[in-house]
Amino acid sequence: MGNVLDGLAGIVGDDKVTAKEEDLLRYAVDQAPVTDFQLPLAVVFPESVADVQAVVRSCAAAGIAIVPRGAGTGVSGGAHATRNSIILSLERMDRILAINADDETAVVEPGVVNAVLNEAVAPYGLMYAPDPASFRSSTIGGNVATNAGGLRCAKYGVTRDSVLALDVVLADGSLIHTGHQTFKGVAGYDLTGLLVGSEGTLGIVVGVTVRLKYLPQEVHTIAAFYPDFRSAAAGVLAVGKARVQPAIMELLDGGTLAQLDDLYGSDLRARGRSLLLVQTDGFGAAAEADVVRRVLQAGGATVTTEASAEAERLVELRRHSRGAEVDDEYRVGEDVAVPRSRLVDYVAALESMAAQYQVQLKVVAHAGDGNLHPTFWIERQADAVDPDAMERLQSALDHSITEALAVGGTITGEHGVGQYKLRWLGQEQPEAVRELQRRIKDLFDPSGILNPGKAI
Amino acid sequence: MGNVLDGLAGIVGDDKVTAKEEDLLRYAVDQAPVTDFQLPLAVVFPESVADVQAVVRSCAAAGIAIVPRGAGTGVSGGAHATRNSIILSLERMDRILAINADDETAVVEPGVVNAVLNEAVAPYGLMYAPDPASFRSSTIGGNVATNAGGLRCAKYGVTRDSVLALDVVLADGSLIHTGHQTFKGVAGYDLTGLLVGSEGTLGIVVGVTVRLKYLPQEVHTIAAFYPDFRSAAAGVLAVGKARVQPAIMELLDGGTLAQLDDLYGSDLRARGRSLLLVQTDGFGAAAEADVVRRVLQAGGATVTTEASAEAERLVELRRHSRGAEVDDEYRVGEDVAVPRSRLVDYVAALESMAAQYQVQLKVVAHAGDGNLHPTFWIERQADAVDPDAMERLQSALDHSITEALAVGGTITGEHGVGQYKLRWLGQEQPEAVRELQRRIKDLFDPSGILNPGKAI
Ligand SMILES: Cc1cc2nc3c(=O)[nH]c(=O)nc-3n(C[C@H](O)[C@H](O)[C@H](O)COP(=O)(O)OP(=O)(O)OC[C@H]3O[C@@H](n4cnc5c(N)ncnc54)[C@H](O)[C@@H]3O)c2cc1C
Ligand SMILES: Cc1cc2nc3c(=O)[nH]c(=O)nc-3n(C[C@H](O)[C@H](O)[C@H](O)COP(=O)(O)OP(=O)(O)OC[C@H]3O[C@@H](n4cnc5c(N)ncnc54)[C@H](O)[C@@H]3O)c2cc1C
Repeated sequence: MGNVLDGLAGIVGDDKVTAKEEDLLRYAVDQAPVTDFQLPLAVVFPESVADVQAVVRSCAAAGIAIVPRGAGTGVSGGAHATRNSIILSLERMDRILAINADDETAVVEPGVVNAVLNEAVAPYGLMYAPDPASFRSSTIGGNVATNAGGLRCAKYGVTRDSVLALDVVLADGSLIHTGHQTFKGVAGYDLTGLLVGSEGTLGIVVGVTVRLKYLPQEVHTIAAFYPDFRSAAAGVLAVGKARVQPAIMELLDGGTLAQLDDLYGSDLRARGRSLLLVQTDGFGAAAEADVVRRVLQAGGATVTTEASAEAERLVELRRHSRGAEVDDEYRVGEDVAVPRSRLVDYVAALESMAAQYQVQLKVVAHAGDGNLHPTFWIERQADAVDPDAMERLQSALDHSITEALAVGGTITGEHGVGQYKLRWLGQEQPEAVRELQRRIKDLFDPSGILNPGKAI
Repeated sequence: MGNVLDGLAGIVGDDKVTAKEEDLLRYAVDQAPVTDFQLPLAVVFPESVADVQAVVRSCAAAGIAIVPRGAGTGVSGGAHATRNSIILSLERMDRILAINADDETAVVEPGVVNAVLNEAVAPYGLMYAPDPASFRSSTIGGNVATNAGGLRCAKYGVTRDSVLALDVVLADGSLIHTGHQTFKGVAGYDLTGLLVGSEGTLGIVVGVTVRLKYLPQEVHTIAAFYPDFRSAAAGVLAVGKARVQPAIMELLDGGTLAQLDDLYGSDLRARGRSLLLVQTDGFGAAAEADVVRRVLQAGGATVTTEASAEAERLVELRRHSRGAEVDDEYRVGEDVAVPRSRLVDYVAALESMAAQYQVQLKVVAHAGDGNLHPTFWIERQADAVDPDAMERLQSALDHSITEALAVGGTITGEHGVGQYKLRWLGQEQPEAVRELQRRIKDLFDPSGILNPGKAI
């Protein structure tokens, strides 16, 4: 271990490597539950593409695994340290290299924080559309590696749809550029798309060219309170049937409302058992909001009567309604997605699972694209773990996954498989598809040093 | 050859195989220039997934190449027969298997024609967004294999953005399902994205699950005539700067207008040297159209004053402004894309190339995403080929490609590399990137029987 450290420090410089225990602990895990805790050998903070290449070459030679890391906000354990690994933190590579306002593109280093890019392009009337609720801390590199979604993705697309080109350091330390600077381009295979969402297992993202969208001038926000969760979920479908495409359509259940009340002193729970937040934007925002209000009211909602500051404040609260607590072995957040028409039934199924297994449940959903984040938890014991409760929690989790797959869903809509969801991947993907992915992994990383044991 | 035919007929049935000379000739090429004419050994018309699997297995065993084909409207030679090949025409697999209106998805066989799918989903207020100008004849399978773009792609995305899942027959005859039925899904690598745009070289697409978008209720169309092409191209940027995202933004030069006049008896050329057609849609269509009109007028355009039937008719004409003639060795259409800010200069460069090499030029562009279709041609000789003219034509083509790449563009925005553009691919992609793609091809198709010599 001393050797590894010395070797790396010799290559990139002392100030870019640490093996202090407190640093190793801090960088050992992301925000996901930990099933196999490992301390990394070192944490390295490259400041340039050349640094990354040198580190990869040296780890390749020494047979040490590399776990790339952005801000560590991941919730699937994709950035958890593995055995005999270093953490490669891209946080210092945080420069915005170019904003091409006329081309409506930007070029950034991987460590640029999502919100920082958005602030930088806003003066041009532009935005970087994918907006995970972690946008104030997560990095573009991490967003790319997980193909992050977010609140406004039903209208504006996920990370994949905003990435035009990538600079990637491969497992042998070589650097490639994929994609194109233009909005469209079909020369050769879509390597960019293959790398997006590959969770650091195929290469290290060291540069990203993104397409920007127009920052809407007008935004209308509607808060719709419902007497129960099912009717709120039905409201999502009703908006779709009216053929209105909102920018944001977020669904919060009673448990989430209660939690927000606790945290922020609001009185949401008194006003309904479920909340549907809808935001329309652009030149048609007002007209779309009118239709949405009409449709939701017809479905039994109490709707804010005009574009209201309060509704906007609720969207802000929603942006924080995950992350108030960190997942651990007592509390696990999921990320299933189901076809939109199954939302209502799936939500009902979740509620009965919680009852059946006697576990707590709260649900928020990017409902516009059928992506649900149920959190199941059990009360923490002051002194000891209740093994029975732990088992019931796991059963609830497994059951919710099986049910999502049974209705045509997926185990992960946007967070990635990471380490934690590997146990369910075989239920979603047959062996032939998994084998194809293993062979792609082998092709990119024959020695298996890039984030081993993750994603596939 | 007799053996091949007998073998295939024995497997799928007589009525699904032909080796009649007229059929072989008809199916030997798509709409691209032909540089290496080959007659296929046979044309096979599978009617089921099982048929496709049986044909692939039998060709794999016999070492015969398979060239998949949709409607043969491709303009890059991707569907040209190659040496020792059969044409696998998917045209009979043309059933729409499901329209899930609430999920906003549809499942189709590959031979479904783009316009047929759109007609089928329109009654639900839905549309399949990617709309290549060939939408009345090209197939969804062909669109997927080429990652086709179209007129409204600047706003609604290209084919890739509308494909959720694929059924694919691999080179060994096995069938895999990739992707998800939900709008979002990040489990494992994005095999769907890798297959989209792979031009039949990685697998045969036998089923496609697409996401549908909302058919806009309101559409406004603006025709803007300009005294020259440069100002029209500048109009595209001006609309962008006003941060309006039209559904359609098509640019036609004087040569194209003259051609349309010849064909349809219109008087476009008398009204300007260039035409910019803009269509806004959705709830904000009227407000957006107002901004567009103001901005274009300020840039020197003569603009239709209200949503006019004439402007709409012009969009219809534009949809046919490629394909009035088929490309051949005297007339070659290109498909470059450049960053939007370079449109004006690139267009000027094209005009001086035409002058320099004494060749004819006309240009249409999906200008919203910087995708240009310049066509260079020389006058056909009644009796013999003029070798000097042919050389000048090739020089103009090469020069236009080099220039597009020099300003950060790509050799193909939407048509694909096929066979014809292979000669330029090395200028766009360095050897390391090409080698990676060759290795992916090897992984999927170790014997190289799927559309050899195409795409990469
Ligand atoms: C409060 C909260 C809200 C969230 N909301 C959302 C949401 O709405 N939508 C959503 O999609 N996610 C959400 N997430 C999850 C998380 O923020 C995203 O997955 C995010 O994209 C991770 O970015 P990061 O920079 O923190 O990456 P990390 O967590 O550091 O890493 C994530 C993965 O990417 C890899 N990686 C990171 N950087 C690179 C790189 N440069 N090259 C190669 N691989 C790399 C890591 O190895 C790991 O596998 C949320 C998380 C929290 C805590
Ligand atoms: C008038 C005209 C206008 C056009 N406008 C546009 C436009 O606006 N945008 C655009 O992108 N293109 C355009 N094109 C080009 C062409 O229409 C598209 O490339 C279209 O996607 C091809 O579809 P097809 O069914 O004709 O496929 P084909 O031409 O038959 O095949 C195209 C490629 O896909 C492969 N392929 C076909 N089906 C399958 C399958 N099921 N599985 C695997 N591989 C398969 C073939 O091997 C070939 O490589 C235009 C062409 C014409 C003639």
